[in-house]
Amino acid sequence: MPDPTRLSINQICVLPQWSLAQAIEGLARHSVPAISVWREKLHEIGLAEARRRIDGTGLAVSGLCFAGLISSADPAEAAKARDDVRRAIDEAAGIDAACLVFLSGGVDARDKDLAATRARVLDGLAQLEDHARGAGVVIAIEPLHPMACVTRSVLTTLKLANDWCDALGAEDVFGITVDAYVTWWDPELPQQIARAGKRIRAFHVSDWLTDTQDLRLDRGMPGDGVIELPAIRRMVEAAGYSGHVEVEIMSARNWWKRDPDDVVRTIKQRFVTEV
Amino acid sequence: MPDPTRLSINQICVLPQWSLAQAIEGLARHSVPAISVWREKLHEIGLAEARRRIDGTGLAVSGLCFAGLISSADPAEAAKARDDVRRAIDEAAGIDAACLVFLSGGVDARDKDLAATRARVLDGLAQLEDHARGAGVVIAIEPLHPMACVTRSVLTTLKLANDWCDALGAEDVFGITVDAYVTWWDPELPQQIARAGKRIRAFHVSDWLTDTQDLRLDRGMPGDGVIELPAIRRMVEAAGYSGHVEVEIMSARNWWKRDPDDVVRTIKQRFVTEV
Repeated sequence: MPDPTRLSINQICVLPQWSLAQAIEGLARHSVPAISVWREKLHEIGLAEARRRIDGTGLAVSGLCFAGLISSADPAEAAKARDDVRRAIDEAAGIDAACLVFLSGGVDARDKDLAATRARVLDGLAQLEDHARGAGVVIAIEPLHPMACVTRSVLTTLKLANDWCDALGAEDVFGITVDAYVTWWDPELPQQIARAGKRIRAFHVSDWLTDTQDLRLDRGMPGDGVIELPAIRRMVEAAGYSGHVEVEIMSARNWWKRDPDDVVRTIKQRFVTEV
Repeated sequence: MPDPTRLSINQICVLPQWSLAQAIEGLARHSVPAISVWREKLHEIGLAEARRRIDGTGLAVSGLCFAGLISSADPAEAAKARDDVRRAIDEAAGIDAACLVFLSGGVDARDKDLAATRARVLDGLAQLEDHARGAGVVIAIEPLHPMACVTRSVLTTLKLANDWCDALGAEDVFGITVDAYVTWWDPELPQQIARAGKRIRAFHVSDWLTDTQDLRLDRGMPGDGVIELPAIRRMVEAAGYSGHVEVEIMSARNWWKRDPDDVVRTIKQRFVTEV
């Protein structure tokens, strides 16, 4: 059973129902220890107001989601995307987030060269090192599920994330987000979690439903699917991670249609029985 | 450009439109060199009739699709599934198919133990060796896309397929199907195709659409998506494969609604320009 004080709830679990102000108030009311903030909601109220409200509740911030998508083959587009990551780094510092979750961006139809796209993203990450160090923010690169390779992430495996961290060689600035939903299928998962070790800066959980109907927005509540979440959590802990365990469920057909207080209550229950 | 005499069209490209008899006649009429047969369509007309019609046209048979799904934790269910694979082996022999495409089966909600499921499938495969050798049929195990891990295949990477072939140690009987659609995202693809070498007994192509809407039935026509098909084909050829290149498109929202003769004409055109 996970330590209940390590629970974080990603705001995306109740994205359509609650503003950031409502999410901060709601999670605090339910005694949830930590929140992960979604950038579009942060922008609605602004950094200072978000900071004031978070400080008022004592909620920890396990992460800011997300920045990145720097994979474009067009140099101007890629530079603009990197500038946006720098803004996100400042935002993460401003709300004292444990990390900034980074998504690489996908390969697009104009440029089918996957190896070149990956090389571009790795080069772009290196250009963000100084800004992140200056702000005291860890960029936690997140491999996504291979089904997101064209839309969001050419970083498709934890092995590649480890390879990129080896290449970047700046462990104070670059870490890894391990998400059980996007990595559970990987035969190399135990070895690559062990290899990641202290690089792990965020750990996300949700469940894979047997009747999954959408490539992005059909994640399940822990316990409703097939992922061995306790086993993966124990691997991550054995690797040295002791931060928050963040429940991150995008669910257009189910949880996004529910009463948000019920969503939070269910997450709290399932966290102790299924994670 | 691929050798046009190596084109095979998987019957599933026109599954709802044509019976097996119609597919055999249609592909022969369009001078397509080879067909890959879908078992449910074979059962409609029976093995003897299928053999007679195929022989009458001179079509080669690049594969029989598919058998497997032997992953159940229930011993009786698993034994029944293995018996069905044995029937499929006999069918593959009966139509002189170059291989029998094998799908492992997924992990189910009753048994979330992915490692144990994989071990069961590998053990089940070993039990099929003698029957396959007796029939002179190659079982071409196919890793599927990780998004099929719960529905169809705990075999999620080409690396694991190679590991299984190492463990099985019967290269005359067990080979590998490389499908570009389900493996293109894999950072290890070049190394694992090279490692597979002569194990490659089938090579399937289709394209990943940027707006993919379904986890199984939304494959694209070569050229309509983002996969570098010529690059992957060249890797497979460099590994020593010189068999048919099989176009396999399941497309519920597009190609399954088209005139089947148009589908075949389009495949023939795209094969030389996009594969």
